[in-house]
Amino acid sequence: MKTLILAAGKSKRLKPIEDKNLMPFLGKPLAQHQLETLQKAGFGDFIFICGEHNHKEFQALKKKMHLSMPIIIQEDLSLGMAGAVMQASPYIGKEPILIVSSNDIVDGKIFETLKTEYKKKDADGFMVARHVSEYFPGGYLKLNKRGFIEKIIEKPGEGNEPSKLVNIVIHFYKNAQDLVKYLKTAKTNRDDLYETAVSNMARDGFRIKAIKYDGFWQAVKYPWHVLELWKFLLENALDKKSKIQNPKSKSRGATQIISKKAEISKYAIIKGDVIIEDGVRVLEHAIINGPCYIGKNTLIANYAMVRDSHIGENCVIGKSTEVARSYVGNGVWMHSNYVGDSVIGDGTSFGAGAITGNLRLDEKNIPVKINGEKVDSQRNKLGVITGKNVRVGINASIMPGVKIGNNSFIGSGIVLAENIDDNKFVTGKWELKIAENKAELDKSAREEMAKKLKS
Amino acid sequence: MKTLILAAGKSKRLKPIEDKNLMPFLGKPLAQHQLETLQKAGFGDFIFICGEHNHKEFQALKKKMHLSMPIIIQEDLSLGMAGAVMQASPYIGKEPILIVSSNDIVDGKIFETLKTEYKKKDADGFMVARHVSEYFPGGYLKLNKRGFIEKIIEKPGEGNEPSKLVNIVIHFYKNAQDLVKYLKTAKTNRDDLYETAVSNMARDGFRIKAIKYDGFWQAVKYPWHVLELWKFLLENALDKKSKIQNPKSKSRGATQIISKKAEISKYAIIKGDVIIEDGVRVLEHAIINGPCYIGKNTLIANYAMVRDSHIGENCVIGKSTEVARSYVGNGVWMHSNYVGDSVIGDGTSFGAGAITGNLRLDEKNIPVKINGEKVDSQRNKLGVITGKNVRVGINASIMPGVKIGNNSFIGSGIVLAENIDDNKFVTGKWELKIAENKAELDKSAREEMAKKLKS
Amino acid sequence: MKTLILAAGKSKRLKPIEDKNLMPFLGKPLAQHQLETLQKAGFGDFIFICGEHNHKEFQALKKKMHLSMPIIIQEDLSLGMAGAVMQASPYIGKEPILIVSSNDIVDGKIFETLKTEYKKKDADGFMVARHVSEYFPGGYLKLNKRGFIEKIIEKPGEGNEPSKLVNIVIHFYKNAQDLVKYLKTAKTNRDDLYETAVSNMARDGFRIKAIKYDGFWQAVKYPWHVLELWKFLLENALDKKSKIQNPKSKSRGATQIISKKAEISKYAIIKGDVIIEDGVRVLEHAIINGPCYIGKNTLIANYAMVRDSHIGENCVIGKSTEVARSYVGNGVWMHSNYVGDSVIGDGTSFGAGAITGNLRLDEKNIPVKINGEKVDSQRNKLGVITGKNVRVGINASIMPGVKIGNNSFIGSGIVLAENIDDNKFVTGKWELKIAENKAELDKSAREEMAKKLKS
Repeated sequence: MKTLILAAGKSKRLKPIEDKNLMPFLGKPLAQHQLETLQKAGFGDFIFICGEHNHKEFQALKKKMHLSMPIIIQEDLSLGMAGAVMQASPYIGKEPILIVSSNDIVDGKIFETLKTEYKKKDADGFMVARHVSEYFPGGYLKLNKRGFIEKIIEKPGEGNEPSKLVNIVIHFYKNAQDLVKYLKTAKTNRDDLYETAVSNMARDGFRIKAIKYDGFWQAVKYPWHVLELWKFLLENALDKKSKIQNPKSKSRGATQIISKKAEISKYAIIKGDVIIEDGVRVLEHAIINGPCYIGKNTLIANYAMVRDSHIGENCVIGKSTEVARSYVGNGVWMHSNYVGDSVIGDGTSFGAGAITGNLRLDEKNIPVKINGEKVDSQRNKLGVITGKNVRVGINASIMPGVKIGNNSFIGSGIVLAENIDDNKFVTGKWELKIAENKAELDKSAREEMAKKLKS
Repeated sequence: MKTLILAAGKSKRLKPIEDKNLMPFLGKPLAQHQLETLQKAGFGDFIFICGEHNHKEFQALKKKMHLSMPIIIQEDLSLGMAGAVMQASPYIGKEPILIVSSNDIVDGKIFETLKTEYKKKDADGFMVARHVSEYFPGGYLKLNKRGFIEKIIEKPGEGNEPSKLVNIVIHFYKNAQDLVKYLKTAKTNRDDLYETAVSNMARDGFRIKAIKYDGFWQAVKYPWHVLELWKFLLENALDKKSKIQNPKSKSRGATQIISKKAEISKYAIIKGDVIIEDGVRVLEHAIINGPCYIGKNTLIANYAMVRDSHIGENCVIGKSTEVARSYVGNGVWMHSNYVGDSVIGDGTSFGAGAITGNLRLDEKNIPVKINGEKVDSQRNKLGVITGKNVRVGINASIMPGVKIGNNSFIGSGIVLAENIDDNKFVTGKWELKIAENKAELDKSAREEMAKKLKS
Repeated sequence: MKTLILAAGKSKRLKPIEDKNLMPFLGKPLAQHQLETLQKAGFGDFIFICGEHNHKEFQALKKKMHLSMPIIIQEDLSLGMAGAVMQASPYIGKEPILIVSSNDIVDGKIFETLKTEYKKKDADGFMVARHVSEYFPGGYLKLNKRGFIEKIIEKPGEGNEPSKLVNIVIHFYKNAQDLVKYLKTAKTNRDDLYETAVSNMARDGFRIKAIKYDGFWQAVKYPWHVLELWKFLLENALDKKSKIQNPKSKSRGATQIISKKAEISKYAIIKGDVIIEDGVRVLEHAIINGPCYIGKNTLIANYAMVRDSHIGENCVIGKSTEVARSYVGNGVWMHSNYVGDSVIGDGTSFGAGAITGNLRLDEKNIPVKINGEKVDSQRNKLGVITGKNVRVGINASIMPGVKIGNNSFIGSGIVLAENIDDNKFVTGKWELKIAENKAELDKSAREEMAKKLKS
């Protein structure tokens, strides 16, 4: 059996996040997490589909993971998942095939289930199907009376769903070439070639089961999905690794994996589930309130508080900064900031006093403009989403749900309420009034205040 | 003897504070404090005068306090204190009557004194009179040679005072009907019907004594008066209740009443006189520096410092916030703010980095615009006065002495230097300049900085 | 032998610093440090040259130091060093003379060396000469084959230096009158009368040696030079005085001189080399991270962090303020600020949330406008330079390298990106939009958030 990993797609909706597959979580790109989960469940013989844009990075990942899989560049990204499978077909015979998206992150246990299903002879394939309570822009399954898939309807629009079951891209076919054949002959004028092919297979009698799954699932469609994802990966990692109880822990029952190569001040407080990597320094009066991941060589400075957040490597979380419920990439520098419910790209810096607003004054859900359209994030707390190498000046205020593109600079003191593209320099138009100062300072007032301070 | 409690008045000068009588102090409305003080001194048989606007709330208070007093709605508020007494007259016979304002807060001991005075036969009534060193807009007493009141002159204007004695609304008459009769016949074209009636009584031979009083007195005429009031009530409460010394207290001699149902982190510091109620949580590295009152279920978060302040119930004093010399009502949320010398109404929120300026650059006294007129607050430190349910955005700057009306929202990053009415949404007119970013980041500079941090 | 101290010059380039000689370091004006260093090395018999502008202050210093030296006012400041020597000449005979600038701060050991040199008979005079690796606007020495000075070229401009040796104003002549004679006859149309005279002496056969010196040297030409100077003086002071190890010190090997009259909270942390003077109070959770000097009666408040900085006397470093790598004069008040790489004049105040930017968004070196010209500070971290009695409003943002003149006020919320002269009042031109607030607050959202906080 071959396992096809799909990692070619570019997600416009994720902008300014460039490639979710390569986004670092707990010190590894997301794709590596997926590959390791598959390996752990006993899957191997990978075929990896990527794009021109991320080919180099995946080559490096392959080397780092000592894998021998072919890495195929998908030529026509507009053909989506169907194109990926067709382009991989020369590498597959009539074997069974498991098709997995590199970023549909699920509980690893589902792969164990799949191995049992695979041995049964009652179907020609299956898909993992998840019950959704709110509309999600994915492929909805219509099942027939016998419980097999009759049709997949891609993004039907809210209210038109044939069921509440959305397929997760973990699909299995007993004979890969059957799928390839249907893909080659399917016809559609929408963005659903793959779904059409599978619907045609169903029409022609192929029995494709829906394996219902109720565990963790986080597709990364919108930037804020990252905020749930890292947390799952952390919990996952804490289960996997051997548990070391930190004797200084104030929260009994917490799992804390703190590198011996980390320096934790005895005046720092570390609570809850945490992973703290090599070379991390946590200075006096800092607080880390788990669940938290702190990457290699990151500095958590005095009075800084990190809670419920992922911090990448080589970051400086400077004095009195608060990072709450956020994902922070690598090499990010903060200083006396509040960053809440935010996704902060690698190499970004915040000047002192810069703040991410994460709650509207009216406390309503926060909309985010995505490809020109307002999307309700379904969250009433959401901060900023930045690309890589963003710079934010001192005392700047970023409004909830604003996105800032790669290499863009935001001037000091600005109130930023709109999305900013890549490579922009945003400054305020300040007008000052400079007059003669006619105030006469009365020394006694100050002396009076000084006296009060003493008492 | 009847005790008439006056609580009908609407104080325009207090705007945006709607009803001082109902303002919560130490978990109780101000009127309840007054009623309890009277009860403690042995007064009962209350008649309570309120207005349409606060009748419901006083009914609830009556129930809560298990009182059986009549609550009368004063129909014509323009008749002031005179109107209140006349409207209550059907409930009073020819008995003696004590007339007390619900918000002229004094040391309870004066009521003990009154009971002694009452037994003496040397006068037909008396008023509590307080020596004022600065002009106060109240009723000034002119005494005759025998020491009885000859006249009351309401708000004579600075420089025209007949004496330095101002009457506090704690007035006693041996026969209530005498007063009622004079009130009904008094004539004035100013706002001083009551004072005219009393002056007429004096003219006709009634002996009304001035009981001089030098203790605490705080009428609530201007919003900033609240800042003195809560402190008196706290000191009062700490005297009354049994004193428990907190063994962890750093300030010997302090009285600290800390509920056993409060959770105080062992990394928190609590100094000076405090009352901390049930359900309060004080997190790591928070500091409470008394005198302070912390109401039920309030959270004092990490690195927050509350000093010399009243915090109501269900508040969140978020990370790194400083509240100094302020009154904060119920359900107020702050986050990384400085709030100094301020009066903050129930349900108000401050976004991170919002700051109340409390000192002018020239360090002069702070004027407050009240009913269109600039009033010198006589304070060189005064912050903001907010109504209820105000929202202040991140990094907003509120200038000293500014008032913000109920349900008004102040946008992020704004410098607010004017009073805002109820139900307004204030935003800045920001102009941004968005240009191409031509800066080339030199990685070496950052690496150099990172290296310095390590050493 | 006479020792002539030059302290008359006015440094336009230092603006808004008025007189470097009088700037307080470690509780003493800079000139006093120089005088004490000379005294310690055995030099006495001072003649002090000052200007009209600082004569009174030096009279006071003379009295304070119990010196009997003549203090001469230089009449024509435009004649520079030459004018100073000529005006002092009536006070000197044919004695040897040492000429020292009051602000060319060097390691005191060089003066010991000079005493040895003086006894040798191999030269008619000498100058201390320092090798510079980067262009410095000073007097460069051209040496002849025998190693004597042939010429001094004042400010040759980068690339035109005759050598890499710059003379430090520590000059010795065996016969003062020789120098005076040459000064009187020298002719130049540039600002180099003294240098011309010395070049003429060399031409006529006077043997003037260059004493090479590689130790600490900090002329105070530009304001940011102050940032190196105080540190040298601190290290110097810590060597001189008896070393007391603070048993609570977290940094072994550090020298901490903490007055017994200072109050250090047991919750404060003090690390590294420090001098903490009488009457200093360091409150709970403050951190002082040396090298630091904290002057008399200064308050380091809760959560304040001072690192690598000089703080003068009677300062208030208020709650949560961070002062890093800065020089702060006397009587400065800060409150929840970040002040980095800055020079802050006496009596200056910062409102809460005011921040000094100290790093450009592009991380390039910071230019400073000096006398109308942009000068590269050669630093990529540089904050603000303020004169005396500056006031900065709340949430103001001062851009890197900005200078603010004496008695100037900077309004709240401003982004200040230009230099401000003395006695200015700078305010923003804010436009607000005040609309009806149509938002309806949904209590449940807030209750939901409150619930989350509890858990």
